[in-house]
Parts: sequence; C-alpha cells; structure tokens
Amino acid sequence: MSTTTPARSTWQTGSGVTIDDATLARLDQWWRAANYLSVGQIYLLANPLLREPLTRDDVKPRLLGHWGTTPGLNFLYAHLNRAIAERQQSTIYITGPGHGGPGLVASAYLDGTYSEYYSDITEDTEGIRRLFRQFSFPGGIPSHVAPETPGSIHEGGELGYALSHAYGAAFDNPDLLVAAVIGDGEAETGPLATSWHSNKFVNVENDGVVLPILHLNGYKIANPTVLARIPDEELESLMVGYGHKPHMFVAGFDDESHVDIHRRFAILLDEVLDEIAEIKRSAHAGNEQRPQWPMIVFRTPKGWTGPDYIDGKKTTGSWRAHQVPLANARDTPEHLDVLRQWLESYRVNELFDETGRLHDDIRSLAPKGALRMSDNPHANGGLLLRDLRLPDFREYAVDVPVPGGSISEAPRVLGDWLTDVIRLNPDNFRIFGPDETASNRLQSVFQATDKQWNAEFFGDDVDDHLARAGRVLEMLSEHQCQGWLEGYLLTGRHGMFNCYEAFIHIIDSMFNQHAKWLKVTDDIPWRRPIASLNYLLSSHVWRQDHNGFSHQDPGFIDHVVNKKASVVRVYLPPDANTLLSTYDHCLRSRQYVNVVVAGKQPAPNFLTMDQAVAHCTRGLGIWDWAGSEVPGEKPDVVLGAAGDVPTLEVLAAADILRRELPDLKVRVINVVDLMRLQDSREHPHGLSDAQFDGLFTSDRPVIFAYHGYPWLIHRLTYRRNGHSNIHVRGYKEEGTTTTPFDMVMLNDLDRFHLVIDVIDNVPSLGSTQAGLRQKMVDERLRAREYTRAFGDDLPEVRDWVWPDAADAADESQVAATLSTGGDNE
Amino acid sequence: MSTTTPARSTWQTGSGVTIDDATLARLDQWWRAANYLSVGQIYLLANPLLREPLTRDDVKPRLLGHWGTTPGLNFLYAHLNRAIAERQQSTIYITGPGHGGPGLVASAYLDGTYSEYYSDITEDTEGIRRLFRQFSFPGGIPSHVAPETPGSIHEGGELGYALSHAYGAAFDNPDLLVAAVIGDGEAETGPLATSWHSNKFVNVENDGVVLPILHLNGYKIANPTVLARIPDEELESLMVGYGHKPHMFVAGFDDESHVDIHRRFAILLDEVLDEIAEIKRSAHAGNEQRPQWPMIVFRTPKGWTGPDYIDGKKTTGSWRAHQVPLANARDTPEHLDVLRQWLESYRVNELFDETGRLHDDIRSLAPKGALRMSDNPHANGGLLLRDLRLPDFREYAVDVPVPGGSISEAPRVLGDWLTDVIRLNPDNFRIFGPDETASNRLQSVFQATDKQWNAEFFGDDVDDHLARAGRVLEMLSEHQCQGWLEGYLLTGRHGMFNCYEAFIHIIDSMFNQHAKWLKVTDDIPWRRPIASLNYLLSSHVWRQDHNGFSHQDPGFIDHVVNKKASVVRVYLPPDANTLLSTYDHCLRSRQYVNVVVAGKQPAPNFLTMDQAVAHCTRGLGIWDWAGSEVPGEKPDVVLGAAGDVPTLEVLAAADILRRELPDLKVRVINVVDLMRLQDSREHPHGLSDAQFDGLFTSDRPVIFAYHGYPWLIHRLTYRRNGHSNIHVRGYKEEGTTTTPFDMVMLNDLDRFHLVIDVIDNVPSLGSTQAGLRQKMVDERLRAREYTRAFGDDLPEVRDWVWPDAADAADESQVAATLSTGGDNE
Repeated sequence: MSTTTPARSTWQTGSGVTIDDATLARLDQWWRAANYLSVGQIYLLANPLLREPLTRDDVKPRLLGHWGTTPGLNFLYAHLNRAIAERQQSTIYITGPGHGGPGLVASAYLDGTYSEYYSDITEDTEGIRRLFRQFSFPGGIPSHVAPETPGSIHEGGELGYALSHAYGAAFDNPDLLVAAVIGDGEAETGPLATSWHSNKFVNVENDGVVLPILHLNGYKIANPTVLARIPDEELESLMVGYGHKPHMFVAGFDDESHVDIHRRFAILLDEVLDEIAEIKRSAHAGNEQRPQWPMIVFRTPKGWTGPDYIDGKKTTGSWRAHQVPLANARDTPEHLDVLRQWLESYRVNELFDETGRLHDDIRSLAPKGALRMSDNPHANGGLLLRDLRLPDFREYAVDVPVPGGSISEAPRVLGDWLTDVIRLNPDNFRIFGPDETASNRLQSVFQATDKQWNAEFFGDDVDDHLARAGRVLEMLSEHQCQGWLEGYLLTGRHGMFNCYEAFIHIIDSMFNQHAKWLKVTDDIPWRRPIASLNYLLSSHVWRQDHNGFSHQDPGFIDHVVNKKASVVRVYLPPDANTLLSTYDHCLRSRQYVNVVVAGKQPAPNFLTMDQAVAHCTRGLGIWDWAGSEVPGEKPDVVLGAAGDVPTLEVLAAADILRRELPDLKVRVINVVDLMRLQDSREHPHGLSDAQFDGLFTSDRPVIFAYHGYPWLIHRLTYRRNGHSNIHVRGYKEEGTTTTPFDMVMLNDLDRFHLVIDVIDNVPSLGSTQAGLRQKMVDERLRAREYTRAFGDDLPEVRDWVWPDAADAADESQVAATLSTGGDNE
Repeated sequence: MSTTTPARSTWQTGSGVTIDDATLARLDQWWRAANYLSVGQIYLLANPLLREPLTRDDVKPRLLGHWGTTPGLNFLYAHLNRAIAERQQSTIYITGPGHGGPGLVASAYLDGTYSEYYSDITEDTEGIRRLFRQFSFPGGIPSHVAPETPGSIHEGGELGYALSHAYGAAFDNPDLLVAAVIGDGEAETGPLATSWHSNKFVNVENDGVVLPILHLNGYKIANPTVLARIPDEELESLMVGYGHKPHMFVAGFDDESHVDIHRRFAILLDEVLDEIAEIKRSAHAGNEQRPQWPMIVFRTPKGWTGPDYIDGKKTTGSWRAHQVPLANARDTPEHLDVLRQWLESYRVNELFDETGRLHDDIRSLAPKGALRMSDNPHANGGLLLRDLRLPDFREYAVDVPVPGGSISEAPRVLGDWLTDVIRLNPDNFRIFGPDETASNRLQSVFQATDKQWNAEFFGDDVDDHLARAGRVLEMLSEHQCQGWLEGYLLTGRHGMFNCYEAFIHIIDSMFNQHAKWLKVTDDIPWRRPIASLNYLLSSHVWRQDHNGFSHQDPGFIDHVVNKKASVVRVYLPPDANTLLSTYDHCLRSRQYVNVVVAGKQPAPNFLTMDQAVAHCTRGLGIWDWAGSEVPGEKPDVVLGAAGDVPTLEVLAAADILRRELPDLKVRVINVVDLMRLQDSREHPHGLSDAQFDGLFTSDRPVIFAYHGYPWLIHRLTYRRNGHSNIHVRGYKEEGTTTTPFDMVMLNDLDRFHLVIDVIDNVPSLGSTQAGLRQKMVDERLRAREYTRAFGDDLPEVRDWVWPDAADAADESQVAATLSTGGDNE
C-alpha cells in the first residue's frame, strides 16, 4: 500500500506521439480482461478461467450484481491507466454508477492492488476463483463499490453525489485529477443536477481538477434515461450552460472495431488532458477567468460486449442489461451456453498465463505504485491525514464572573477560535454551509479568510468576503455542502458543516451513507481513520421566530442516534465556553459524525472555562450552584436539561423553586453529551446504571427539559432503574407564529410549567402547593397575553438572569443586553 | 370562495391590441399598492395608511419578514392578473421564493380574496391595520407563504420544490396555467436543478402548462446567487439545455421609467402566452414533438423600490435587502425617516380612498372570482377532490385455503387491484416512483396504462410501456416523485409513491413540510381536506440481498412517527390480503400521510380476505390458529410481530414451540397498524391501557419481532403496564453481504433466536430447557455454515411453511415455489 502521494504532477501536455498499435492492443486486452473478471464475479463459483468445460455447478445459485454499467467503467479505467502512466498524473476515480462494483474490483485486481490489500486473493487461478466466489456471496464483499474496494471513496448505494464528492476531493489538492464517472441514471437526481455548478467554486491554481465523464448508457432499471433521450444539441447546451466544454463520444452502436474505438477515445482523452494542462498553465500565468473545464459525454450501449439478445429479447443496449441479464443461467443447457459464449468472447486464454496470472505486457498498461487509481492514497484519506494545529481554546474563553454573569452568542465565540484554526491550517480545513456562516454567527472567520467563489464578481459594495480562494464554501444546496465535505474528509482533510437545524434533514440519507462508510471502515484494517464529520446546528427549532416558523423539526438527532453507537456523537453545549470545549474535542476526533446543536441568539454564560472543560469531560454533571441540595441527603426532585434553551428554563425554574419553596431539595443536572444517558452496554459513552442512579437517583422524580422530541430521552433511558420517574418536556410540534418564550410555553417547556411539573410529581407538594401551582398557571397566562398585545415577550421573562448575575447586574447591566433586535437570515 | 373551476380556457392568443396607457398605469398602481402593503406588513403596527405622521410607536417592536424577493413577486402577480383577465385563463401562482409571504398576502388582499376568506381583515383602514399587525406577530400569520395564504399550495419554508409542485398541479389539468416563480437561491438546490426536466414528462394535450419564471434578483442571505453570476449566454444555454425557450427580461438597474418597464413586460408576457397557445394548438392538430416550452428569466434588483442605501451601505440590489433591510427603524429619528420616505414613495393616497378601500379602477386589473389566482380552486384542492371509484378489493383476494397455504408477492396482488383503480379513475389517480414500479411488482398496472414520457422514443424493443400519456411517472429522483405527487394531491387528486425503503429518507425533509401543511390546514376552515399521501415501500431492508446491502435503514418510520399523530399512519401488512385491505383504506383516507411497508418477495399468505379485513379493521389482533393458548387461561408468553419478515419468523418460532414445548401457552399477536401500540391519549388509533393489557397482558413476557429499529416499539409502549416485560427484536444495522435468512439471524430476529428469547424470559423454562436452547444455538450455527458454503439459505429454513400448509403441500407443491430466482432491480 502506498502511503505517500505520487510525485508532483506538472500537468503535462501529452506525450506528443500518436498512440501506437501495441498500446491500442494492450488497451483492448485490459478491457477484455476487466470485463471477463466482471462477468466471472457475477456468475461463477468455480472453473474461473474456463480451463474445464463450463457446467451448471460452476454457476452461482443466486445471481446478484449489476452488469450494465460495468463495461463502460472498465473501458474508462483502462484508458485512464494509459494516460496516467504516460503523464505520471496522480488521479483518483469516482464511480458514480457505484453498482458497477464488479468493474472496480476487476480493475483493482488487474492493477495488482487487490492482491496487495487482500493477500488471499492471489494472482493466480485460485485467487481468481476466490475473487469470483466472494462477490456478493455470504461473508464476501458487497456487489457495489464499497469501502472494501481499493481506490474508492464513494459508496455505490444511493446515487447523486459523484460530482460533489469529486470536487470535495479536489479542493486543496492542486496536483490531483479526479475522474468522475456520472451515470445517466444518477444524472437525474437533484443533488447531481446541481453539483455541476461546483465548477464555479473550484480554484484553478489551488485546487485539483475534476473531469466529469457523463456515461450515457441510456437505461435505468426499466426505463430510458432522460439525458440519453434529448437531442445531442440540447445535451451540449446543458453542459455549456453548466459551464463546461463538452466532448461528445459515441461508440458501440455499429460495427466499428474495438481497436478503432480505443484509438478514437485515446486521442480524445489526450486532447482533454491537454486542455486541462493548458487551463492550469494559463492560471499559473495569471489568467483569472473561470475556465470552461472540459467534460466528456461517453455514449455506449448498456451492457456493452454482453449478449445482444437473450430469449429473443434485446439485452445489450437495453434496460434488460441493468443487473444480471442472464438471471436463469443454470436453468437450461441453452442458457448455460449463452453464458459460456459470452465468457469465451473475451478470449481469456490470451490474457492470463497457465498459472492464471495476467500477462506482463497487459499489466504494463497500468501505472506503478501510488499512481494506480486503486492505490492512490487520496482514496484512503486517513493515510494523508495531518492533525489540525489547534489553538488553545481556553484562550478564547468568555469571562463568566458568576453563573449567568455574561451574555454571548455562543457560535460567535466559537467563530473567534475557528478564525485561528483557519490561520493555523491554511490548506486542510474548510467550513461548508448553504448561505449561513455569517447568519450563524461565525463571521469572525472572515477576518482570516474569504468565501471561495469563481463565478463573476460585482465589487465590494455587494460582494461580502468573496474571493477566488478561501476556506469557506457556501452554496444554497445542503446536498452540495455535505457532499463536498464528505469528499474533503474522505481524502484526508478536516472540516465542518454549519446549517439550520431543520434543514439538515435534507441530507438525512447522505448522513446514512457516510455513517455506514465509517462503520464499515472501522473493520477494514487497511483503511486508515479519517477526521470526523462535524455539524454545527446553530439556528435551531426554539428560535424560529426569525424564520416564520417554517423551520421545524429537531429530529435530526433522532435520525443520527439510529446509527451504530461507534460512529455517532451528539452534543448540546449550553453556553459559549462549553461550545468551545466541545468543538475542540470534535475537531480532534476521528471516524465519528459529531452533531453539535448550539443556538446563535444572545444567551447567558453559566460556566467558566475551567468549569466548562470539567463539565464537557464528564459529559454531564450536577450544577451544585443551581440546586438546593442538602449534603448527604437525597434530593426531593431532579431537574435535568439538555440544550441551551432547556437549560435556561430549568435554571429559571430552579430560581423560582428556591424563592418559593426554600426547603425543597432540588438537584440540577446538565447534559452536554447526550449519549451519556444511554446504557454503557449500548454506547461507549453511556453511563453505568450505578453512575446513572448516583446522578438521577432511582426513585426521585426527574423533570427533564430536552431540546428535541421528548421520546428520545425515554429511548435513551428506558432501561434505567428510575425510568418510570422521568418526565420529559421537549419539542412537540406546536410551534406557530409567536415569540421565543411563547414558543417555549406552547411546548410546556417553560420555567412555569417545569415548576408545575415539580409540584405534580413530588408527592409532598401536590397536596400543599395548590397556591403556587395556580400562581404558575397565572404567570403563563400573563406572559401569553403580553405577547399577544405587544408582539414581544414579557421583559421580566425575556431578561431574566440567574440571581447571582442579577445581583451583579446592578453594576454591569448584563440583563439589558439580552434583548435582541432584528436578525438577518 | 369559488368552488368550481373557471370556465374552460381556449388557450387564446392575446387580445391583439397594444397594451394601452390606462392599463400600464393600472399595472403600476397595483404594483405600488402591493409593495406598500408588503412593507406595511413587515414594519407597521398602526397608522396603516400614514394618515397621521409616522411615529416610532407605529413600528413593530420586533421586525421579521423578507422584503428582498417581494417586489418582484408583486410585479409578476400584477402582470399575470392583467393577462388572466384579458384571456380568462385559469392560472395558479407557485411562489418558489416562499419567504416573500408579504407579497402574496398583499396580492390576495388586493384581489379581494383575503377579506372574503378572513372576514376580520376588511377592505378599509382598520382592515389594513389588522392585516399589518397579524403578519409574523404572535397569534397571527407566518412570515412565509403558508397554508393560511389564499391561493397557495406551496409552503414557503424549505426551498427546492417550486417546479415539481407546479408540474404536479399541471398533470391532468389541461386548461390550467401554472406560473411558477423560481428564486435564484432556490435554483441552486438539487431538487430544483433537476425539476426542470419535468418538461420531458408533461403531456401537451392532457396536462396543463407550467410557465417557469426564474427570478434573478441576484442575492441570498449573504451571497450572490450562482445563476446571476454567469454570463447571459451560459444561462441561456442552460435553459435551452433544460429543454426551454428562454426569454430574457432585465429591469430596474437603470433610469427606465416604471411605465416603460411595465410595457416591455406586458408585451413579453403576451408573447409568451401566445407561444403557449400555439404549442397547445399545434398539439391538438396532431403534432407530437416535444415543444420548447417558453420560460422567462426575470432579472431585477433585490428589494426593488426599497431604499438604495441605508447607513451608507448599498441595500436595494444587494444581499442586505434579503430580510428586513431597515432592522433598526425604531432606533433613531433618521432611521424612522428612511422608513417614512420609503413608505411614502408608493404614494398610497392615490391608491386607497379615504375609507382605506382600493380604488375600483386599480382593482379592475384583477380577474373576477375563481380566475383570481388567490381564489383559484385548484389552489384549495379539496374543493375539487372527487372520491376515487374503487373496485371492491375483496374480489382481488388471493386464495388462502389454510394459513401459509399459498404464496404471493403481495405488491403484485395489489398491482392487480391498482390496475382497475387506474381503469376506473383515468384522470385523477397517478403512481409515482423513481424507476421501480415494475421492480416493486406493480407491473400489472401496465395492462391498463403506460409510463408517461415525452422525451425521445426508441421503439418497443427497448421502451417498456412508455407512452406520451400514462398514469405512471418515473424519474430517478425521489425529490421529483414526492414533489410531483404533493402538487397533484394539493390540487385535489389522488396518488401514491412507490419507493425502496432505504431511499425514502431522501425526501425526509419534504415529508416534514407536507406533514406540516396537513397539520396546519386541519385548523383552517376554508382549506378543504385533500387525499392522503400514500407510500408503498416494498423493497425493504430485510431483503437487501438483491442490492448489495447498500440499501439500509428502516428509520423512515421513526421519522414519520415524530410528526403530529393526527396526520401520520404507519401500516405493516403481513401478507397479500392484508395489503389489499390496507391500501383500500389508504386510498379512501384524507389528510394523512400513510406509510405502508410490504415486501415484494414471494412469501406465504396467512389470512383469507375475510380474516384480513377483520384483522386490518382492528389494526392488530391475536392469531388464534398460530398460538397454543388454553381458553380462559393466561398465556405463558406472547409473541408479537409487526412486518412481513418478522411475522414469518414469529410463526416459524411458534411452530418450533408447538413441537418442542407442547404444553407452553403461546399467544401470537400480529400488528398491522403500528399506531395501535401507542397510548390512546397520544394517537387517535392508540389502544386504551385496558385493551393493551387484554392483548399483551401486563405481566407475561412479550417477545416482539419488529420490522424496523427496535426502540420504536419501546417508544410506542413505554407507558404500558407491562412495558418492562416487552423484549423487542428488530433491525440493528448489522447487515452485510449475506442471504435473507442469514440477514435475519445477524439481527437476532430469526425463529431460533426468538425461541431462545422465549426460553430466557419465561421463568419456568430457563432452568429446564437448556437442551432446547442449545439445539436452537446449533441450528443457527448450521444455517450460518450452510450459507457460507452454498451461497444460499438452508432449504428447510427457506422453504419452511406453516404446518397446516405443509400438510396441504404434499398435494400442491406450495413450498417449492418459495425459492426465488434472480430479480431485476
């Protein structure tokens, strides 16, 4: 396995010589070998090189896999190998049509990489037998391109992200070529359709080059594809409109010899690579114009080189070639004979020697070592991962003289630290977001960097921190942000995605795929750990007042928690210093998805940095200063909180309880790391039952205020001893047009209702505190009436601060700064 | 409110007369009125028509809303009104930039509709005051276009679906024009980027016309937009590539008078509408060519007519105009004066009479009654909804002589019924799916209809049931399928979306938005109920063997269950007859999202149709024939199942228990309607505690086999008396490359493990049945080893049938048909 990047490319123009006949022959031999190995994987259990007559028992009993896209993928791989070897151009291959797994496995095997990574898959007949048998076989490898596939950074399940991943890989890799094959099925998806516009963001000098190859094989499972069924001129217009210079290539629909086809494509590929080299050269010479990057439209029959007709039905060149075209190969001697003829058509004996080893001459088509696309270390990003140089987050702490004694927009504080993260890591850390880095209060970063943008500029009057190069990438497509970031991380860099909480559901299924990648790679020894994927959700559901209450649903956390505990982490830091500590932890971590939810509105700070570090290290803890416990005695009630708004309301409730019921022993617990609530047998961060009972007790009522849907807390704690005593207040989808505190009241998460919950659940209070209970009901009504009358929250509610801070506020006017004005988002 | 559609349009060409000066003046007056009312909504609490000097107290304390897109929306609305009135063309307006809520509310008010729908918002000064005050005010209306907005079918929260919704509305409404404004921010999203291709699916003769208007105002929250920063030629190429004829219109960047601008746009709009009329005419005359539908690129300054500079910063024509450009209007007299001048610039006294009523001459710009876009009944689809004519599903029943006595692919049986649903409802029922209607076994429908397709045709050899008109729409974009279906339903028709279970997460956030729409409209009296949105997920996570195990995650159910109980339903029919009964129920229902999960692989049928109807009516029930209870005695253990694969395994476990432990009293419960498990206080379908205890007992162990993530069952039942006795087996993300039964074993959901669970949880068995327990462990090992050796499941496991059926099988060979061959998907 190669652990260093290939030597620096000079983006050479071509060798200058015409492609000779020997090379063309070699290209065809390679292609035949790859196609043979692909068909073999799908169909054969034994007799791998047909050294014996093919029998029914040689064929797998269950035929699974996708043939249709595979020969095209193999063709392109062969030709890229030729060009890479000639130009010594570091290149990775993104397989958009990822169901073409057999092709990429075959190519990696021909490269020699497969046997290097998997020593039992040897370069001989027995190795090929094992290669075939393992494919989509119990205990073997998936039928799609997968983490197990050398050279891949791209799971072949859900379609749509080939180009986003490709550009993510290209950012900050100025010497890298990313050949991105896009299936015409995939091209119909929304995420792919917009990802073409990535070319307005990539920087010619500092970033690598993406070469999109749109593979028009014309069909999906049972339908034609849209882009294969519009006139050529329309398709060319579309590509021009996307900002590309399209090169149209058609082959396989007539009698043209394969050698002629190879010649035409080799010439085209050289032309395209020369165009790219010229664009690079021109940029180095100072040309700042956005180039018309070349792209290739590669139109071939689906299932090219397979049987034309099976049982009288057109197969090659139709949707019938999509998966296993000869699904009944074992049924009859006639069908078996179709398979035999198909396999024999590749003339495998000309390709492998008697031991089953690929002839050296064919192998010489491939480049060596790390220049092999299957062994390029960029496709095993952990190999290239450098630790971030992180400034000491403690130095960015906000001053918290007493709990609640200062006010911050937590992400703004984080932004100060991120500014220096960017300064210290100028080429391997990026921030992605739809359009919200400033709105989410990270605007400090623009002191150190800009938003990278390579479309037109209109001047500083209207272009806010736009530049041809910069660490922040913003496009109004959550799919793009996620895809770019995934590509960037998978190739060994670091980054984060800041997004509105409600809109992060847009990438639910992309998260699934990335989490699966992490889970699977944890068990693949040659895959090195990559940096975690970090979310910052700072415009959250409790402050929808700025967004017309269209931004609902805190359920991304629920979605994330469904995944393997080994790859997901969820943090809800309650203030600025805890956010700093949390994010430092996230940026140091590997192989996780970290979800951090932290509101951007001005809010009180509760913990000094020392307290914050200790609190975040524990992940949750008792806030002694907020409770009213008696040392050595059990509390009467536990108030728990996870999330910034819930924390504020719990503290305000604790304040009321102190004043109204001074003898009540209240414990206040704050949770930063949500997974701490879970059982230690379920999640590595989980508390043991003894620890949990020590905090929450096993028999006292727990009133728990939670940021998201309340049932998640029940789910995380249902096995706990005291679970039947836990009463959760959370988000209930009751939001409507209202003010922040009214929003909280609508969901019964407000301080007054929490006090009511305490009265209703502490047995000794229920009968004696009817008066206090009624007072709380009245307070809620008064608050509601005020919002309806004045369009704002009651000042005393809105500006409430923790009593210690209120004492200090006589001098510092802390409370006054809580009022918030308009907000541009 | 109009309850009938406007008279049939003849898609007239224009009036033929030049637009006269009076009309141009009226257009400008309308536009000024709409802009004034928009600014007023954002800023004013009182003094609505500035009849008094503007004071600080007239301004809202919290300023929320979006100005930037609004004047453009108002301009287009005014011009469409003119054209509609002239041509009597039924038209609805899709507001892609849905945050421009003030504009659509203002336009509906000027149309007169708003006061008709909301009688307290009168057409006088007091009505305008209320109109202003309610906007984004506690207890008022959202700041975005919302269900509360007359004329809207399109929630203005998450962006990306304007065109999909527009085409969904156009299908089967041949006389309807759908003017779809697309913001240039929205245009960057993936779903929008691919939705342009909808024009390859719409049928000229049978469907309505979508007129896309790309509103290039150039900026998002803090960034320029991509499409506003590419050369005009590139943008035109893009639109041509998408299959459109673009008309470029630029205004507002120079000194051109508003009258001249109105004249140019009015002429352009007439030209475009004439082109559309000509396309319609040509199609009626037999032209089958896909037309180049016109579209308009409408480039204007953002926040057009607002203050050019505020505090020295460029505002109009910049991102600063996006939301509330003058966020500090109350701060200083100077800022208040900016607002005053801005408001006064519209010369409101020329527009409204002394009572505050719009002058009749201006009002005459709008069409009458249902031709008003704000009152078009297509935008309140429930008004037009016709019940489906449903064939009696009982007649499509499969024969089930004994439980397990026949084998079906359940969706194939459903397909037979759907075929007749299509026959009986040729113009108001459609099936949407990415590419999988046949793969999902609904192929019978192609006996009655085709897949609608209006790109190129290549002949029957390769075009499988493609036709210019048909009831099935397939494009490889789940976003498109969902968006089309939503648009179709919201305009009063019926439909379903069939999709792979794992990929349905792609539309998680679209589901959120639609569920929110349903929830809100439940409380809007003038919004009539619409047909439910029905999913059929028939390629589910337990049968990933055909898909390389890339299709993971059954969590869509979890996502759905997070929404208001009043709008979501989840069904897991265990066999063909229950699926028929379930789907009949779904197609009759209103205002729900129905999620139906039913596997497509051959599987045994358990219930006769009479039993199925009874079972589905109850939603869950005891399967006496499967259990071994003793009448009048409590069972020793309850085996519960929800989902087809879990049902099969539970029955196989019950079979083992009967044989091995004939004295054990086993109760078998099957759950079709998942919401029955929930508390009746949480969900209208929920069981009371007494009912629940009657079924599941409060003290006996319950071994529950569930289709999805196990914790959902805990979440639904955590308040039940017997909850601590419920042990759930479900999906645990352990899938890898394997066979179906091995997949079940990996997740401990298999029959052998369920028996182990019984032994471990029934106290009397634990000590005495170590032998049986070991036997089960051995059976699992043997099954695992077989799959590793042969690539298939143990025949006796794979072909297991319920004993009654096994007895019958000697004659009928039922079991043999269970083996499945290759599967094209």
